[in-house]
Amino acid sequence: VTGFDVPDGLVYLDGNSLGALPEGVAERLQDVVRREWGQGLIRSWNDARWMELSRRVAGRIAPLIGVQPGDVHLGDSTSVSLFKTTVAAARLRPDRRVLVVEPSTFPTDGYITAGVAELMGLELRWCDPADPLAAVDDDVALLSLTHVDFRTGAMFDMAVITAEAQARGALMQWDLCHSTGAVPVDLTGVGADLAVGCTYKYLNGGPGAPAFLWVAPEHQAAARQPITGWMGHATPFAMTRDYHPAGGIGAFASGTPPVLALSALEAALEAFDGVSLTELRKRSLELTDLFISLVDERLPGVFEIATPRQHDRRGSQISLGHPAAYGVVQALIARDVIGDFREPDIARFGFAPLYNTLDDVRTAVERLELVMANEEYADPAYSSRNAVT
Amino acid sequence: VTGFDVPDGLVYLDGNSLGALPEGVAERLQDVVRREWGQGLIRSWNDARWMELSRRVAGRIAPLIGVQPGDVHLGDSTSVSLFKTTVAAARLRPDRRVLVVEPSTFPTDGYITAGVAELMGLELRWCDPADPLAAVDDDVALLSLTHVDFRTGAMFDMAVITAEAQARGALMQWDLCHSTGAVPVDLTGVGADLAVGCTYKYLNGGPGAPAFLWVAPEHQAAARQPITGWMGHATPFAMTRDYHPAGGIGAFASGTPPVLALSALEAALEAFDGVSLTELRKRSLELTDLFISLVDERLPGVFEIATPRQHDRRGSQISLGHPAAYGVVQALIARDVIGDFREPDIARFGFAPLYNTLDDVRTAVERLELVMANEEYADPAYSSRNAVT
Repeated sequence: VTGFDVPDGLVYLDGNSLGALPEGVAERLQDVVRREWGQGLIRSWNDARWMELSRRVAGRIAPLIGVQPGDVHLGDSTSVSLFKTTVAAARLRPDRRVLVVEPSTFPTDGYITAGVAELMGLELRWCDPADPLAAVDDDVALLSLTHVDFRTGAMFDMAVITAEAQARGALMQWDLCHSTGAVPVDLTGVGADLAVGCTYKYLNGGPGAPAFLWVAPEHQAAARQPITGWMGHATPFAMTRDYHPAGGIGAFASGTPPVLALSALEAALEAFDGVSLTELRKRSLELTDLFISLVDERLPGVFEIATPRQHDRRGSQISLGHPAAYGVVQALIARDVIGDFREPDIARFGFAPLYNTLDDVRTAVERLELVMANEEYADPAYSSRNAVT
Repeated sequence: VTGFDVPDGLVYLDGNSLGALPEGVAERLQDVVRREWGQGLIRSWNDARWMELSRRVAGRIAPLIGVQPGDVHLGDSTSVSLFKTTVAAARLRPDRRVLVVEPSTFPTDGYITAGVAELMGLELRWCDPADPLAAVDDDVALLSLTHVDFRTGAMFDMAVITAEAQARGALMQWDLCHSTGAVPVDLTGVGADLAVGCTYKYLNGGPGAPAFLWVAPEHQAAARQPITGWMGHATPFAMTRDYHPAGGIGAFASGTPPVLALSALEAALEAFDGVSLTELRKRSLELTDLFISLVDERLPGVFEIATPRQHDRRGSQISLGHPAAYGVVQALIARDVIGDFREPDIARFGFAPLYNTLDDVRTAVERLELVMANEEYADPAYSSRNAVT
């Protein structure tokens, strides 16, 4: 495992919001800026292989989600990527008029689905996260769920839900923002139809790094995304008048690829070289198991543990419910333990198995005890709220 | 004027495809990566003011296009930005069913407009670039033109076309990719409705830098773009179920802002500090005038000069038509003069008034003479084509 530049003395449990800086990224960006851009200039599209960069990075993400390298595209934000896949899904099921999404998912998923529904004259239907399939009838074109919930860390059973949604004739889309890089995902194995995911959380691509999207090979010929930009054209440099989509996942590209961000991400993904996803998951569960058991032991009854204790329902974070959760998080930050707050009452701790240690967990809970014992969370300075994912 | 890191001995006339590296950008990116991301981690959304970054950079672009800082958004590619503004325009004119675009424009403009037309059940109509207004009747919702043509360098009269399109009830959208930073633009003065533009050409933001978009203040309350992601929400961190757009141009945001790319762009834009657009335009015309006069004098009748000689119809590039244009460009590159080739027969030379000099022009034409005199363009190595914008 490549190292990470985490500040000395800091316990960083927010890698599920912004991953830490992997070693090698800063050097790579310097080289891209000074040599490839500064010296190579326009020639670098060929000489530094910028034209292939997006596909190359996609190839590094593919094994983390159980798909073939040539079936992943990346380059836009998660929101834009979701827009593309959601429109494509609706078009693959033109006889069905309903898009289903959870009300408690990360909000952009609901917002984007609502936007697509309005644009295409479809119906947006909210499902019960405890039983999303109950909303899937034969009017449903797409069930779109987040694999691991951003707030609670609860994880859906991808295989069971995918199979049942498809049995009802719907397509199944998974948002992998809070799982890729921390939880093994096998999109091919479960037979999913579409997926999107973020690269600045457990993939450590840096703030605002581009998202990825995946469309199952069997849908690619028929799938049509709406943002038909020149980079998704079969022959972009022929610069012809009419749009003819590239074959395969290439048709999901739109604009010029973000070379600086993609280069940073490519370097960051080297941290996964030689890492077994099974080992990574084992480490993640050790971290979250220890955190739960220490909270149970040292702070019994103080928090509601919102994350499932059952391994196969748990992502790589632990969420603690408490009426003063905002103050708790702020007081911990003052003690160099960084987690984050989520509305309405969640103190959230992400465990990045690539770089978090069991000692991080012990230190975090020790300081949490102090915060609670001294009522540090009640500091009036924490009365106004300010949070970032 | 801040300096640029252009390699010694190179005559770079392709800043209309990828701008040169401004001094200070590499240092800024190092600081963003190592200190803001590596050390600050998630805290930098507030402490390093990443949340304001997009608006701050927008504020630096605004004076270059004659608009107020708070009316510009940036963060997506040009293609995605065009998709948003084009859908918004169509929605502002729900009683009109036609979108008009030129067939010879940069292809993504036509491709995106076609994609929007298909998605919304509208008609795409191609206009004659020599008389775009002839296509604008009372069915037309939007006339979308590129201010300076990527291939020929011909420039439309924004004021006249905007006024007449609006007189016919259409909205007017300008693609400023090939003008911003080299040609003064006054969107407010001409009363345009919408605009988009690129930042990696004359704005020198780096390969794949995010595009900007602008919507006239009087349309912002009613304008609705379709990619309703969380960053365009009135209160993104409340993480509520339903989408409520932010006020003003903020509703055109979708996903998490690309912090690395925006930071590079912010540093790059310092090159415009204290630069008068009038002086910049004067310099640009000196460069292109000299190039034309030297080609006329030294290479009479060899090329068709595809760019208008008339100042008020000329952008900041000169395009030379020649049957062997591809070989001409390649042979010049072998002589350290970088221009580019555009289908079918154009050798294109961009003059970036921030860093190109009259000596660059003289050297370029001297070497062009050699390339033609020695028939270097006929080298069999140049028989296969490969071009990048």
